Amino acid sequence: MRTSVDLLVVEASEVVTVAGGEPGPLCGAAMDDAGVIPQGAVAIAEGRVVAVGPQPEIEARFDASERVSAQGGTVIPGLVDPHTHPVFAATREGEFDARSRGADYQAITAAGGGIFSSVRRLREASPEQLAERLRAHLDRFLACGTTSIEAKSGYGLTPETEWLALELLRDVGAEHPVDIDATCLAAHQVPPEFAADRDAYVRVVCEEILPEVARRGLARSADVFCDQGAYTIDEARRVLEAARELGLARRVHADELAPVGAAELAAACGAQTADHLVCISDAGIDALAAAGTTAVLLPGTCFSLRLSEVAPARRMIEAGVPVALATDFNPGTCHIPSMIEIIALACGLLGMTVAEALVAATRNAACTLGLPGTRGVLEPGALADLLVLDIPNHLFLGYQSGWNPVREVLKAGKRVASREAAAPTLL
Amino acid sequence: MRTSVDLLVVEASEVVTVAGGEPGPLCGAAMDDAGVIPQGAVAIAEGRVVAVGPQPEIEARFDASERVSAQGGTVIPGLVDPHTHPVFAATREGEFDARSRGADYQAITAAGGGIFSSVRRLREASPEQLAERLRAHLDRFLACGTTSIEAKSGYGLTPETEWLALELLRDVGAEHPVDIDATCLAAHQVPPEFAADRDAYVRVVCEEILPEVARRGLARSADVFCDQGAYTIDEARRVLEAARELGLARRVHADELAPVGAAELAAACGAQTADHLVCISDAGIDALAAAGTTAVLLPGTCFSLRLSEVAPARRMIEAGVPVALATDFNPGTCHIPSMIEIIALACGLLGMTVAEALVAATRNAACTLGLPGTRGVLEPGALADLLVLDIPNHLFLGYQSGWNPVREVLKAGKRVASREAAAPTLL
Repeated sequence: MRTSVDLLVVEASEVVTVAGGEPGPLCGAAMDDAGVIPQGAVAIAEGRVVAVGPQPEIEARFDASERVSAQGGTVIPGLVDPHTHPVFAATREGEFDARSRGADYQAITAAGGGIFSSVRRLREASPEQLAERLRAHLDRFLACGTTSIEAKSGYGLTPETEWLALELLRDVGAEHPVDIDATCLAAHQVPPEFAADRDAYVRVVCEEILPEVARRGLARSADVFCDQGAYTIDEARRVLEAARELGLARRVHADELAPVGAAELAAACGAQTADHLVCISDAGIDALAAAGTTAVLLPGTCFSLRLSEVAPARRMIEAGVPVALATDFNPGTCHIPSMIEIIALACGLLGMTVAEALVAATRNAACTLGLPGTRGVLEPGALADLLVLDIPNHLFLGYQSGWNPVREVLKAGKRVASREAAAPTLL
Repeated sequence: MRTSVDLLVVEASEVVTVAGGEPGPLCGAAMDDAGVIPQGAVAIAEGRVVAVGPQPEIEARFDASERVSAQGGTVIPGLVDPHTHPVFAATREGEFDARSRGADYQAITAAGGGIFSSVRRLREASPEQLAERLRAHLDRFLACGTTSIEAKSGYGLTPETEWLALELLRDVGAEHPVDIDATCLAAHQVPPEFAADRDAYVRVVCEEILPEVARRGLARSADVFCDQGAYTIDEARRVLEAARELGLARRVHADELAPVGAAELAAACGAQTADHLVCISDAGIDALAAAGTTAVLLPGTCFSLRLSEVAPARRMIEAGVPVALATDFNPGTCHIPSMIEIIALACGLLGMTVAEALVAATRNAACTLGLPGTRGVLEPGALADLLVLDIPNHLFLGYQSGWNPVREVLKAGKRVASREAAAPTLL
């Protein structure tokens, strides 16, 4: 007697569950097994995974009116992007081009570019313009296989515009299949109008912006950019402590440009994540490992900025730091929308294995969104967010990079994006 | 009175002609202008470009029964991939994974991997199996926007299997939209059965394989892998001179692993291309510039192999060497099918501008296929091979990498691949 479910996903060359271990460090036995089930199948009911296993076993146990054939492709969990800046008014591809012609940060800023141009443009934009663009970004994420994101404000830098960005994430997100976990990044930079009195803006963040964010539930977390040329350790500590007192989770843009000790601060403040970490010190690595703070690595940013240095991913993995990967999607330093590309960059530039990168882009990323066990894994009880990829096995995510193999996207068991197979999937 | 044509491509945010200069070096004035026409349109008749210009001007001059709307996207020439190895029997993703876990070339070879595993598998495969896989590779190239390729034999290493690979390229190519320019790479490696008598195999190549290739017109060019661990300078010179006497064009896998002087040899032998060039010497750069030999750079291979060294693209461009880009698509060292990804890697790893990379992936690549002015450019008389991309301008090829923006592929004025726009194109 077979159990009735809503949907079976069948005819996969493999199903990668990315389950089989606690959320946490990538090293150790769990990482050598990304949970690959050859010729696997997935049973889905009421939007959730009921069972995953070899297809004959799943078909013996479950009966469904609807079947999705993977046509020999690979099934993986919907990708989770734990660091994005998708609320902005205009792209900045001219800066990408200028950098390739030798312009440095100073030259770009002098020409009216850089982050403050995004601040200016956002303040001038209408909510409708920002919403339309945000929706387009979410559509592209979904087409690239991302079903959940963390998303930050941070281009407003006034109370009203920071709240507006978070309201847009809430409102656009409510009508879009991609799940959004919002973060207030009012402490992205010190806005130009406060350049002469930085302390006053830190007080605005701590005493005005964040309290209202917490009161209205506009974001689950707060973030601060703690680095050379951004917030100092002392300023960042004030922001993080205010966030903690308000019951907000903490994330930190840490040690991207210089080893200022931001990773250590993130660990000391009980942050969920420390992000970037290109210049993290050995003490910083030890601190993250001891605190269990997840390192969110952003290889697309180093690639887009043509930096020769990248985050020391292998040292962090070996030290037992939980590692996640993200796009850093933003208008200035990385406009890559695809977590699949980020997985390829993690293999090519950070020295990660495909299995490590896949866990970092799913299970570990979901944990930093406060969604362990329900996103980024295919195991009983998890939301049925999954992708059918036009590749014969998950190793192709590193081996055959640079295109978009996503053929089907299921969100909570519903098809939300699909296309024809571009070519037969051959092993 | 308007002229009747078959097709107008309209409503583009920009048309990039990549014309406006002779085939040749990337440096100089021509490269600062990739031929961008804002709000451009293309008139097409009998499979060829009749005119390209601002849309109002084109519409005033031409009338067509069929119109393709670019819907605000960017139109560029069909991409040209001037270095591929698409005839093989099996992928080798396990080696990619083993390398990420620390295995070196010796360990991979000892485990039965490496290039000779591809040789063994090809010799065992049926022509039908090889044809099916080749067709799948061409389908994927086309979906990624590549409309012409150079394609090599080189996994047979016997007269019969090398000829078979070239016959497959001819026969499968004849039925596929992608144009193929075939190259005999019988001198890819010395086959194991000749390890004790290398000279005897060089004689087989020069006196048996290449003469028959030339006699039957199976390939336009011959190639030799001249490097540490491959063919010596003296052996390679014999192959290249035999090719020249047979009227075959010459290409050289040169100085990828060590500065053995293969670039200098390529220049001295009047080769069309010297490829890889990661370890090229200054003398090699000067020799290529003086001879007008095109440097075909393969950043995907360095990326897939996680090499920290890459070809000195900027030095070559500044020295006046014509530079082209290619995938190196093969089962072992680079399985990236997309020239758009290669353009992104050229920006991120080789320090090229988007405009340089685009010229290198179109016009300059087409010249190495012996097709100047008819492929890789949008100008009157060229074959109407063009792409509609879901991006608002060509800078997005570097700025927003890692997915496949190809929405429409036209080959000789006919739609051969298309999909729905993944998301609105927003500037």
